[in-house]
Amino acid sequence: MYGSTYGTLFKITTWGESHGKGIGVVIDGCPAGLELNETDIQKFLDRRKPGQSKYTTPRKEADTVEILSGTFEGKTTGTPISLIVYNKDQRSKDYKEIASIYRPGHADFSYDSKYGFRDYRGGGRSSARETIGRVAAGAIAVKLLNQLGVSIYTYTASIGPVSIDKNQFDFNTIFQNPLYMPDSIAAKNAEEYLEDCMAQKNSSGGTVECVIKNLPANIGEPAFEKLNANLGKAILSIGAVKGFEIGDGFSAAKSTGIENNDCYGHDEEGNIIKLTNHSGGILGGISDGSDIILRAAFKPTPSISATQRTVNRQGEALNINIKGRHDPVIVPRAVVVVESMAAITLFDMLLGSMTSRLDKIIKFFE
Amino acid sequence: MYGSTYGTLFKITTWGESHGKGIGVVIDGCPAGLELNETDIQKFLDRRKPGQSKYTTPRKEADTVEILSGTFEGKTTGTPISLIVYNKDQRSKDYKEIASIYRPGHADFSYDSKYGFRDYRGGGRSSARETIGRVAAGAIAVKLLNQLGVSIYTYTASIGPVSIDKNQFDFNTIFQNPLYMPDSIAAKNAEEYLEDCMAQKNSSGGTVECVIKNLPANIGEPAFEKLNANLGKAILSIGAVKGFEIGDGFSAAKSTGIENNDCYGHDEEGNIIKLTNHSGGILGGISDGSDIILRAAFKPTPSISATQRTVNRQGEALNINIKGRHDPVIVPRAVVVVESMAAITLFDMLLGSMTSRLDKIIKFFE
Amino acid sequence: MYGSTYGTLFKITTWGESHGKGIGVVIDGCPAGLELNETDIQKFLDRRKPGQSKYTTPRKEADTVEILSGTFEGKTTGTPISLIVYNKDQRSKDYKEIASIYRPGHADFSYDSKYGFRDYRGGGRSSARETIGRVAAGAIAVKLLNQLGVSIYTYTASIGPVSIDKNQFDFNTIFQNPLYMPDSIAAKNAEEYLEDCMAQKNSSGGTVECVIKNLPANIGEPAFEKLNANLGKAILSIGAVKGFEIGDGFSAAKSTGIENNDCYGHDEEGNIIKLTNHSGGILGGISDGSDIILRAAFKPTPSISATQRTVNRQGEALNINIKGRHDPVIVPRAVVVVESMAAITLFDMLLGSMTSRLDKIIKFFE
Amino acid sequence: MYGSTYGTLFKITTWGESHGKGIGVVIDGCPAGLELNETDIQKFLDRRKPGQSKYTTPRKEADTVEILSGTFEGKTTGTPISLIVYNKDQRSKDYKEIASIYRPGHADFSYDSKYGFRDYRGGGRSSARETIGRVAAGAIAVKLLNQLGVSIYTYTASIGPVSIDKNQFDFNTIFQNPLYMPDSIAAKNAEEYLEDCMAQKNSSGGTVECVIKNLPANIGEPAFEKLNANLGKAILSIGAVKGFEIGDGFSAAKSTGIENNDCYGHDEEGNIIKLTNHSGGILGGISDGSDIILRAAFKPTPSISATQRTVNRQGEALNINIKGRHDPVIVPRAVVVVESMAAITLFDMLLGSMTSRLDKIIKFFE
Repeated sequence: MYGSTYGTLFKITTWGESHGKGIGVVIDGCPAGLELNETDIQKFLDRRKPGQSKYTTPRKEADTVEILSGTFEGKTTGTPISLIVYNKDQRSKDYKEIASIYRPGHADFSYDSKYGFRDYRGGGRSSARETIGRVAAGAIAVKLLNQLGVSIYTYTASIGPVSIDKNQFDFNTIFQNPLYMPDSIAAKNAEEYLEDCMAQKNSSGGTVECVIKNLPANIGEPAFEKLNANLGKAILSIGAVKGFEIGDGFSAAKSTGIENNDCYGHDEEGNIIKLTNHSGGILGGISDGSDIILRAAFKPTPSISATQRTVNRQGEALNINIKGRHDPVIVPRAVVVVESMAAITLFDMLLGSMTSRLDKIIKFFE
Repeated sequence: MYGSTYGTLFKITTWGESHGKGIGVVIDGCPAGLELNETDIQKFLDRRKPGQSKYTTPRKEADTVEILSGTFEGKTTGTPISLIVYNKDQRSKDYKEIASIYRPGHADFSYDSKYGFRDYRGGGRSSARETIGRVAAGAIAVKLLNQLGVSIYTYTASIGPVSIDKNQFDFNTIFQNPLYMPDSIAAKNAEEYLEDCMAQKNSSGGTVECVIKNLPANIGEPAFEKLNANLGKAILSIGAVKGFEIGDGFSAAKSTGIENNDCYGHDEEGNIIKLTNHSGGILGGISDGSDIILRAAFKPTPSISATQRTVNRQGEALNINIKGRHDPVIVPRAVVVVESMAAITLFDMLLGSMTSRLDKIIKFFE
Repeated sequence: MYGSTYGTLFKITTWGESHGKGIGVVIDGCPAGLELNETDIQKFLDRRKPGQSKYTTPRKEADTVEILSGTFEGKTTGTPISLIVYNKDQRSKDYKEIASIYRPGHADFSYDSKYGFRDYRGGGRSSARETIGRVAAGAIAVKLLNQLGVSIYTYTASIGPVSIDKNQFDFNTIFQNPLYMPDSIAAKNAEEYLEDCMAQKNSSGGTVECVIKNLPANIGEPAFEKLNANLGKAILSIGAVKGFEIGDGFSAAKSTGIENNDCYGHDEEGNIIKLTNHSGGILGGISDGSDIILRAAFKPTPSISATQRTVNRQGEALNINIKGRHDPVIVPRAVVVVESMAAITLFDMLLGSMTSRLDKIIKFFE
Repeated sequence: MYGSTYGTLFKITTWGESHGKGIGVVIDGCPAGLELNETDIQKFLDRRKPGQSKYTTPRKEADTVEILSGTFEGKTTGTPISLIVYNKDQRSKDYKEIASIYRPGHADFSYDSKYGFRDYRGGGRSSARETIGRVAAGAIAVKLLNQLGVSIYTYTASIGPVSIDKNQFDFNTIFQNPLYMPDSIAAKNAEEYLEDCMAQKNSSGGTVECVIKNLPANIGEPAFEKLNANLGKAILSIGAVKGFEIGDGFSAAKSTGIENNDCYGHDEEGNIIKLTNHSGGILGGISDGSDIILRAAFKPTPSISATQRTVNRQGEALNINIKGRHDPVIVPRAVVVVESMAAITLFDMLLGSMTSRLDKIIKFFE
């Protein structure tokens, strides 16, 4: 079967392995007329690029993007946009010795079960480098949403046991610490926690939160194509994500109707608004005009240099210490991946929402 | 846009509103040769039928299913299976007075934003009765999975603050209490909690857990069609679900690599197995041969008779006390909905996994 | 696999067999706000209903449609529209004797190859009654297109060797003869030809032509989703269709560039128009503002009472004379099926065309 | 909307414009374990490469393919295969003067209607160079089909008024004449006809025929996903195709049931076979074990240097003589495009057919 194409009207197709020639994405369904150049995309790729701080792998990956098609005279033409990032600084030899070993927490065993063999170099297709294509496409989706007045804020909400404090919350600090946390005190504590993990050849999990502002109140479909369902799929398709919440999420399960229901009232201009936002901006699968709020749980980086028990393809038991250059925590570099997948999903569903009313369709074609 | 069709190879299309003529589903892609009759499906529908205990709405809905197509001489023919449940005992008049009012926690406002008007009777398409089609299709998916040796266990894991105790866990008790909890002590406590809620005209949230056993180790696709991503979408598309976890879920975000990685070893017959199962049976988006474990968070029933502030279509502020017959908690009746959506997704992706290897395809056509 | 769902944004799912309980369709993605009642749909079904003339089967099929969901107070709500036609006047006994025989020109052998067995009564799912769902959905698509100013004309263009004469062409005569021909002289000749066929226990093929007027000039997509490609799939998915043409079709293959190219000029109001229309209203897969013109070739009715050689499931050779009540030609009743499939495709792609330009999307959401 | 992705299980996504950086395709869903290198693909690309004879454009396009992902140690891994062909020898200046002119028979006007502007260089995305991606993917699909014992023969069946004579038919001559005709006498006559066309600054249409042998008898789905419907869409999505036939095609419309029905009998080994093949190997949308036979009608090359009337973007009338280097007939280079699209469709639907029977699915997973 397939699995590398995502979206219905705004459709992306990614390709590439960690140690192959490159990584890329084709974006099909981008409307004509968007101003777009490599810089727009590179800004996003730089947010996931390694080597930015001591809490990311020291691998040097320039990850420079090139636009191969779909623009003309600086604007999108409506035809597919092909983007490529060539792989550099690959040390494939590092992986020879794990070629036949099943690394705990990795997809080695399940890939072998599925395909009979695998490109073991750097995890092949299951590498986090696969997200380069998502982020490149996400840069375009975010730019499109911005044209429509929608904005997205994404940040690290927790690392291991260290969570941000909503009272300390400050969007402006996000880019002022290497962990992309909107709370400078929590960021400091998280850095200390990570130092400990690294000293113990261990790694940490964490959570990412994403807030979307100013989305119109009609995006999403009843039944299976609910906005929250598609956001959930989008985020859960990112490697290492183990949980997803919208609005109050799992807290809502401990709550009561009186607490959890969002009552309606008016804003200063007399528009109908929800007075609270436990729903996270979605009711019945359709955006309700409030902020969309979602959260993703990332497991700890599976590549650790502490000793682990495992087996090889031949079924022999052995111990493994994973060498190479790995992130002690996935979350900071994953922030932009979450933002990208959310934006791709939102823009796709926003396009889909244009067809819900006959009167608006008639007006469109007048 | 659309939203009532789900699945790629095993595809279901649901239709129907709470107070329309009926509710139904068309299942397309069911393989030929499965023995199937109305009883197979009715058993599942009876698990979500109201009026079974004092913790569900006293509405009497017989919800009797009829097979309209797709079987011949007691077996599926490979062509679409159409199932219908006629609506009965509708008290549409109950809803006249809320026709123009936006009920907190419901989809009234977002539906009006999207479609310009709505069928307000019983929530129309956004009613939980929409899940009848899912459960009817789910009965077939579960039966198909059973033929392949796969089994599914689904139950209530918590109601409000009351969670099951893994030490008290007993599958056999699930059907022995009205809340479908596999822990009779927790069930008793939850019943007491619900009595309190009802006394206060309030409602409760809760969680559902689902365990899938004996799934082969190659189901799911890399990148966007990961098994966990599709399970997540399936579950999050159920009304009132606000969170989804696979394996350790949000706990993994607080964990470390040493704790969270599942080491490999052997079972008694010498087969390769994971020695723990923090991953919940999926690595790299592909099943790894362990139990699949997933969890869904349900918000409290939004229909409560306590007084709430809201507005109407005309934008006038007012108070509302929702009348009618409502469940104090959604979870017990949702257990079979979660099981159904999981089964539909698993069988669909299991079919898709048949094409991953050329050698197996060649053998199939020999 | 599946095969009973069609369309991307305006999506239809059909179900039902010739001698099952009924035939139906679910339309998902119909915009909210269209006035719709059973009469709108019945008018279309009556055009394919048998027993209207001596050139159609004398079977009495009332084929009365019922709307089960998707409308409220006489208008579509944006949620799935479920339509059902109960089967009546089934003489299943007629088919017992052919249960194990492979009728020439029918799908008996290929269905057995695919599914291992089949519902042999009246052809089961491969019966022409399957088109009832298409026509019911087509009635809605045509009504939607009409709201946008688009109109569709469909008629019989030839029966066996008798073709309409473009000089005699008169739209008004289409409903004045039982063969739906827009040329009363050709209609008379075709009737005589059919009398001969019937006398010889034989049947005839024929062609249907469809003209769509006033479609805006931007419907269809480059590459694989060309308007002509999707119209072709739509028409070729009708049982018994063996050929499809757009514009000059196969004649274009014998033509030259000078003859075939449509030069541009102006209409009386100064708008750019094509001066001829060899292209059939589509260039590069996108509508060009001229009339869309398409043609379908139908094979002769395979059910004939003349003696034919064949084999049965056991592989034994034998002769067969097909009894029962069959149309001597498929074409007149297929006219409305062609119109329906064209309309469904056009409306679906028209919705899709709304997303091609960023400036128009921005304006839509203002 | 989108339009550059094709297929369900074997899915291709093409990108690129005539004068952009390159042309490419991503193949998603190719099973693991196929031996594949650049030479396999280059052989196919060379069949559509220009400059091979005086009947194709003298443009020099090396069209060298590079595999960017999806193979490891010479075999496909099951993950997406990305292929690229860089554009060379582009004379974009040739097109400056037609930048604002609507060329008759081209997509200039419809692209402007849809997107508001266009990449006018060499036709941009509407160029025949778009088929490079299809042919590269087709090479893989043909190789996969060959592994399953299926073979495909494709050739020119007519050019202008010159058709091949079935009595002179000889597969072996296909590659012995520059027009890929399986009849050397017809080839000679067609060459003379083309000389005339070229002398008159004119161009010619023609037809391509494709025969698929040894396809199993269960490929294709009832209703909308009939094998013929998908083959039709595949072929009609090739630029310049105006008609499609399966089996007897439009001749069947002039035929009778007695002539057109294929009676059943036995081959020498006692297997059930059709004694004739008017159906073209498909009944009820499902392959019947006979040869699949299809035909495509191509319009004449629209780029001709004869004088034509047209208008420009500003709506001014003018005359145009198209310069540049153009094929006098599209057909010979299109032969391999037809073969590719047929193969992609067949392999995709062959994969889909694996799920039709429960007993075979159970056996697969044993």
